[in-house]
Amino acid sequence: GAWRMWGEADVKRTLPARPFAVHKGIFGTGLLLGGSDDMPGSVLLAAMGAMRGGIGKLVIGTTRFAAGIAAGRLPEATYWLDGLDKAAQGSLPDGIRAAAIGPGLDDPEQVERALEHLLVRNMPLVLDAGALAKRGYPRRNAPVVLTPHPGEFSRMTGLSVKELQQNRMAAASRYAVEQGVMLVLKGAYTVIALPDGTGYINPTGNAALAKGGTGDTLTGLLLAFLCTHEDAAAAVANAVYVHGACADAWTSAYAAEAMLASDLSGQLPLVLRELSLSNQE
Amino acid sequence: GAWRMWGEADVKRTLPARPFAVHKGIFGTGLLLGGSDDMPGSVLLAAMGAMRGGIGKLVIGTTRFAAGIAAGRLPEATYWLDGLDKAAQGSLPDGIRAAAIGPGLDDPEQVERALEHLLVRNMPLVLDAGALAKRGYPRRNAPVVLTPHPGEFSRMTGLSVKELQQNRMAAASRYAVEQGVMLVLKGAYTVIALPDGTGYINPTGNAALAKGGTGDTLTGLLLAFLCTHEDAAAAVANAVYVHGACADAWTSAYAAEAMLASDLSGQLPLVLRELSLSNQE
Amino acid sequence: GAWRMWGEADVKRTLPARPFAVHKGIFGTGLLLGGSDDMPGSVLLAAMGAMRGGIGKLVIGTTRFAAGIAAGRLPEATYWLDGLDKAAQGSLPDGIRAAAIGPGLDDPEQVERALEHLLVRNMPLVLDAGALAKRGYPRRNAPVVLTPHPGEFSRMTGLSVKELQQNRMAAASRYAVEQGVMLVLKGAYTVIALPDGTGYINPTGNAALAKGGTGDTLTGLLLAFLCTHEDAAAAVANAVYVHGACADAWTSAYAAEAMLASDLSGQLPLVLRELSLSNQE
Amino acid sequence: GAWRMWGEADVKRTLPARPFAVHKGIFGTGLLLGGSDDMPGSVLLAAMGAMRGGIGKLVIGTTRFAAGIAAGRLPEATYWLDGLDKAAQGSLPDGIRAAAIGPGLDDPEQVERALEHLLVRNMPLVLDAGALAKRGYPRRNAPVVLTPHPGEFSRMTGLSVKELQQNRMAAASRYAVEQGVMLVLKGAYTVIALPDGTGYINPTGNAALAKGGTGDTLTGLLLAFLCTHEDAAAAVANAVYVHGACADAWTSAYAAEAMLASDLSGQLPLVLRELSLSNQE
Ligand SMILES: Nc1ncnc2c1ncn2[C@@H]1O[C@H](COP(=O)(O)O)[C@@H](O)[C@H]1O
Ligand SMILES: Nc1ncnc2c1ncn2[C@@H]1O[C@H](COP(=O)(O)O)[C@@H](O)[C@H]1O
Ligand SMILES: Nc1ncnc2c1ncn2[C@@H]1O[C@H](COP(=O)(O)O)[C@@H](O)[C@H]1O
Ligand SMILES: Nc1ncnc2c1ncn2[C@@H]1O[C@H](COP(=O)(O)O)[C@@H](O)[C@H]1O
Ligand SMILES: [Mg+2]
Ligand SMILES: [Mg+2]
Ligand SMILES: [Mg+2]
Ligand SMILES: [Mg+2]
Repeated sequence: GAWRMWGEADVKRTLPARPFAVHKGIFGTGLLLGGSDDMPGSVLLAAMGAMRGGIGKLVIGTTRFAAGIAAGRLPEATYWLDGLDKAAQGSLPDGIRAAAIGPGLDDPEQVERALEHLLVRNMPLVLDAGALAKRGYPRRNAPVVLTPHPGEFSRMTGLSVKELQQNRMAAASRYAVEQGVMLVLKGAYTVIALPDGTGYINPTGNAALAKGGTGDTLTGLLLAFLCTHEDAAAAVANAVYVHGACADAWTSAYAAEAMLASDLSGQLPLVLRELSLSNQE
Repeated sequence: GAWRMWGEADVKRTLPARPFAVHKGIFGTGLLLGGSDDMPGSVLLAAMGAMRGGIGKLVIGTTRFAAGIAAGRLPEATYWLDGLDKAAQGSLPDGIRAAAIGPGLDDPEQVERALEHLLVRNMPLVLDAGALAKRGYPRRNAPVVLTPHPGEFSRMTGLSVKELQQNRMAAASRYAVEQGVMLVLKGAYTVIALPDGTGYINPTGNAALAKGGTGDTLTGLLLAFLCTHEDAAAAVANAVYVHGACADAWTSAYAAEAMLASDLSGQLPLVLRELSLSNQE
Repeated sequence: GAWRMWGEADVKRTLPARPFAVHKGIFGTGLLLGGSDDMPGSVLLAAMGAMRGGIGKLVIGTTRFAAGIAAGRLPEATYWLDGLDKAAQGSLPDGIRAAAIGPGLDDPEQVERALEHLLVRNMPLVLDAGALAKRGYPRRNAPVVLTPHPGEFSRMTGLSVKELQQNRMAAASRYAVEQGVMLVLKGAYTVIALPDGTGYINPTGNAALAKGGTGDTLTGLLLAFLCTHEDAAAAVANAVYVHGACADAWTSAYAAEAMLASDLSGQLPLVLRELSLSNQE
Repeated sequence: GAWRMWGEADVKRTLPARPFAVHKGIFGTGLLLGGSDDMPGSVLLAAMGAMRGGIGKLVIGTTRFAAGIAAGRLPEATYWLDGLDKAAQGSLPDGIRAAAIGPGLDDPEQVERALEHLLVRNMPLVLDAGALAKRGYPRRNAPVVLTPHPGEFSRMTGLSVKELQQNRMAAASRYAVEQGVMLVLKGAYTVIALPDGTGYINPTGNAALAKGGTGDTLTGLLLAFLCTHEDAAAAVANAVYVHGACADAWTSAYAAEAMLASDLSGQLPLVLRELSLSNQE
């Protein structure tokens, strides 16, 4: 398959315009499943990415502890308390357009149960962090997006990090084709492998991203873009691009080492403006 | 009745001046009833709108969980814990000038009980979200302000969203006249229908508002303006105008998709200054 | 006694310089007793005023609920959990230079018990809000500072608000002399009555202060200044002046109605710089 | 041994560059043990220093109460709930590169137990506040960094504050050599004594630092720099320098008395940029 860089022109061309006479329903409701007592902040980071990324509504399925933490900083979201347990039992809030699962989750068995139910529904799914494991995926129309860093990809494949990193594109592409998923292999020059064997290389981002939490923000941004883009591949590539562009905007003014993952969402208002100025109505 | 656009000149003319030798009692104490375990942030959003909107004091009737969340971000408010339950039993804090009920509420029966008591008192009332239902309203002097979006208006009337949206002014006006209420039908070009058959169209706002939580901010702003304006119709029209103007101020600098409802309150200090410069003492 | 305006030159003359080779012990440890389940934010507002006002260390005696709320926003303070109850039993943390009591308190009997113990110790005391009542004060060397608004002063004296407001200076001065306290009668042109019959009128502040919570910030500022000033009367007059100057700085840029009490503390870094530039080492 | 000032040129020379193709693992995972019910914010302050200081990942071992407080403000960290108790029983999270212990701890016996286990492992350790006591240290390869202020150093040595302050360098150096530790004697012109008898004097910082909480920020910064620097002495000297430089950046714009410890971390993005501009790749 053909591979190429996904560049600024691609983003500007494919970022959806925001028409005037819209309401939140048009931008979709996303479900975010994540957060645990040891990692309560991850779901907040993802949620900030989703809501600053333009989702219509966000429902966060998390523990009461993590919800109490997130709600003060992001009062705009709503909650589905103990959502992972509920999802594991097969239930889901009404009207969900896409879901993301994984940030801050540490109960792999409960995740498997939830995924059994989620994967049979036909909605875009993002799997990250605690939802990444060695498993197969059923064929479905709506995309499954996996976002491992090399260590997680190693656990998913049984291959060593060294092997995978020596040819990131090939490894990601093989997995994406075999499993019929979109595989976002993170790290410098993130690789976005599509199930048809093609893919993109992302040119944005820098060492400011090498800190805990930045991946969670990406998960949220992916959820938002999957809700607002028509084309899933463009949604994924744009989310990765914009995420890196936020880090680049940060380092143009501040020290890379000082950036926090939440600063990424703070850059979205300006970064998205720059990128979408040309295609607003 | 006569309908017209409520424009900038109307706002500048009717926004109350803030005289020098005043104290908080002059601007009134508002009661805000809202918030639940699944939607704890909504009441914080409304509260920020009310307090940045110029209310004298704010009492928030909510759960302990939601209070704990709101108080760190808005320490300026006070609480009436489990206020909905107390209101349902007929009690009310002393000295309340106006009340708003609904953001984040999910117990319709308790809301009905509270409304029975609230509607017989002669104070301005704002009903939003969880307080909007198919019901009638008693004639009273103080205004009842309902703030449905089209989906909620559909549930209130039994008419389809499509029908209602085809002639928003007519539908809103009919309801307002029949029920003797002020009906704010939200969405692009929000319609403000008055019980005498007249009304206003709001020119401000944009797609940045198409995201969860923005309606809660409006509820708070309405509560504040009903406390500080002499004329209730002007209070309502001004709140809707200012709310939209905050979104317009945001999008003049930032991407619409990235705005959060709490950013609206963040714009109030400058937006209100622009609009009230001409009529301060 | 002689009364006069306490102006900018007075503040600049009496604001203590901040010498270079100091440590936090030099600026003193203050104790703040306040906060309850219904008013958990008040103590945070006061604490922000105290810590941005230059206190060395702050110990907040409050409930666990209020502490959990304050600590995320002001991690710089430490806590004495259920401090009012402990103070009512006669205990006190070590090394306290001055104390403030009242913001957000709603248990008058427990307050009386705590005051019995606090008033016999020879440390400056600020009494506000829930600690203001009709009572007498023992003669002591360290100052007692009372900060009623007219409604509270009315309850303290049994006189009507109207009577008191008709001659604020006379009423405040009479009380201050009789009780041997410093009486800060708040409101436009705050009156600072000293126990020797003299006093000051404060020229700063504006209608932005007419909102819930602003008094709490003043209480904290008073606590800080009593810890850092040598002269208690100057400390009190400076705190009132600076508090109003923060509101004036706000309204020079933003709408008065939109200010929150916490914005006052946000102005302190610049306002204090302006006022102290001339007398730093 | 030779002593000298550690100046800007030293910092610029030794601050590690941040290469492009890195991931968070390269910058290391730090463990921070601190926080108690009475001092829940201290660990948040230290954590902000660590994460804005460039650590790869941060695990905070603290109480559930303190974790709930910290996570809303710093969602980027993860938690090891009741970590001090777990460390006292000899356990430790996987993959920790360096640890800091002490901010906000008030249980000396539990600290001793934890230290017994921590000191036998060969990882850099920072001991501050509640972890400082009169005790000896085993010889080990990885550095032990102690960060007392003069009062704490007095308790550690049994000497009076006056004695210690009269010759800070000599007293610190003697202790560092005898115990084989790095001793950071805080206060104006902080002294950094190395176990080989040499040391540095820090030229940065000012009276803005004379307020509760600033030491906690330094502890976090030390943890971060020990994770990211090759040379431990440079890491310690740089952390002290940068910490003071943040205060100097603050006072160049704002009143010293108004600074909060958390403002120090807020200055890191610009201060670190200034200092590292010359040695980025
Ligand atoms: N050096 C780097 N250059 C570009 N992107 C990076 C770099 N380091 C980390 N990232 C990105 O930061 C995020 C880290 O995700 P995670 O490892 O899950 O926290 C991913 O989006 C990575 O692609
Ligand atoms: N496209 C739009 N243009 C103008 N205002 C809008 C638009 N979308 C939503 N709003 C406003 O945003 C708020 C949404 O309220 P709610 O649906 O209750 O969250 C209402 O005030 C709407 O009028
Ligand atoms: N119109 C006004 N002009 C000047 N200061 C005011 C005004 N209204 C309120 N204040 C001040 O705001 C604070 C209100 O305190 P409190 O009533 O306890 O919340 C006091 O410091 C008052 O002096
Ligand atoms: N006057 C001062 N000049 C420079 N640094 C100071 C000054 N006062 C305090 N510090 C620093 O502030 C921090 C206080 O730590 P602690 O006493 O543990 O809160 C230490 O890093 C001190 O070196
Ligand atoms: Mg990750
Ligand atoms: Mg709504
Ligand atoms: Mg008050
Ligand atoms: Mg310390």
